Amino acid sequence: MKARIHVSLKPGVLDPQGKAILGALESMGVDGVSDARQGKLIELDLADTDPDAARARVDDMCRRLLANTVIETYDIDLSE
Amino acid sequence: MKARIHVSLKPGVLDPQGKAILGALESMGVDGVSDARQGKLIELDLADTDPDAARARVDDMCRRLLANTVIETYDIDLSE
Repeated sequence: MKARIHVSLKPGVLDPQGKAILGALESMGVDGVSDARQGKLIELDLADTDPDAARARVDDMCRRLLANTVIETYDIDLSE
Repeated sequence: MKARIHVSLKPGVLDPQGKAILGALESMGVDGVSDARQGKLIELDLADTDPDAARARVDDMCRRLLANTVIETYDIDLSE
């Protein structure tokens, strides 16, 4: 089973990488982009076969290691 | 319209961040994780209202700026 974890900065937290992307797009002449945010994508290969158990385990990993829940939010996508 | 872009390293490309995550999980006593890869998550707020046009524009941004297609792959999710 594979887990795809999206870790994003909470709204209001300064995001210099996102600002750099927005500035670069503008300097390239790309318009119509009003905001850009950069987060992390973490992909795990899991031995679990039960989706509920896998989700609980990945949630635990996120809280303990993968995300800083003071400034970041995360969501988990599971697939076979 | 919002675009969520996942940028991942191609298989075979060395991923020190992923290896660090795997090592940290093992040292925390988490088992059953056979591989970890870290990529980038980029979220854009777009003025476009047509999904096809938005996808073509974001694809162009990925190729020109957001992904290094020599070593990275990307996929695009659009939502309202």
